[in-house]
Amino acid sequence: MTARNWLETEQRPEDLASDRFRAIFRRHPAGVAVVTFSDGDRPIGFTATSVISVSAEPPLMAFSIACSSSSWPPLTVAAGVVINFLTADQVDVSARFATSGIDRFAGVASFRLPTGEPVLEGALSWVRGEIVNRTSLGASHLVVVRAVEAYQGPQGAPLIYYDRAYHQVDGSSAL
Amino acid sequence: MTARNWLETEQRPEDLASDRFRAIFRRHPAGVAVVTFSDGDRPIGFTATSVISVSAEPPLMAFSIACSSSSWPPLTVAAGVVINFLTADQVDVSARFATSGIDRFAGVASFRLPTGEPVLEGALSWVRGEIVNRTSLGASHLVVVRAVEAYQGPQGAPLIYYDRAYHQVDGSSAL
Repeated sequence: MTARNWLETEQRPEDLASDRFRAIFRRHPAGVAVVTFSDGDRPIGFTATSVISVSAEPPLMAFSIACSSSSWPPLTVAAGVVINFLTADQVDVSARFATSGIDRFAGVASFRLPTGEPVLEGALSWVRGEIVNRTSLGASHLVVVRAVEAYQGPQGAPLIYYDRAYHQVDGSSAL
Repeated sequence: MTARNWLETEQRPEDLASDRFRAIFRRHPAGVAVVTFSDGDRPIGFTATSVISVSAEPPLMAFSIACSSSSWPPLTVAAGVVINFLTADQVDVSARFATSGIDRFAGVASFRLPTGEPVLEGALSWVRGEIVNRTSLGASHLVVVRAVEAYQGPQGAPLIYYDRAYHQVDGSSAL
């Protein structure tokens, strides 16, 4: 980075140690999505467990991405992304889009939107949006997306990541 | 709001309709937390399903809160918060901290940290942090917290919110 971030990127002595921080969030379950976009003709995608809804009207979502991710440099110039929410049947897709050094789209059925973003077949739902903000935060960036278009497939079970493993939601809501 | 936000707060014709946006995120499972802090002597808390880890080193987390939330005005002047990650046994606590017009802390066991923030007893874990940024985003604010202190209890099942109901993670990770 050439510019100084508004937030220090260095660990301070009073900060929580990174291993303790990671241990806490390992036990915080999250739905799994793959964020896809286009770098010219090249399709790009990465698995994200940090997608959240921020505002419904206007419709804004956010996710974080590590500065060290190979997807980050092309994402700095992308205008839009698709967020593909995965089903419990798509463990292999999630693992694939979290693996470095491979062609992540090889063998994964996808199609291109007229706006260029790839969409993964078989997802629970997907939302296309325009990137409206990227904020540098420590070793990551927080990206804000304004939703423009969406598709929701037939009802299915979402994929959950928790304690370094893939899970489903339990069948009952009797809690 | 007196100042103009950097991001338009009005729905545009090309934006995804709010009901469709909400329907998509209803099917996106999330762990449940209660964010607590102090407004002078008064304890404040609200249920949040938008807590994410942004960076581990330095340790940064984020969550969103609606502008319309009664917790937002005091949160604008709070220096720090505690994020209490709930267990599957704490459905009543989650519901309580999402209910308006009641004393949310009544009948809920809690204690105060030396820094003033209340901590809920029985949570899976909690993290105390300093608020380092608040960004206005549509009808909400995105709040970034730098983690300073944490406690992780004995292993337990986390609480999940999905499809307008409370759930647990399934028992197996055989996916």
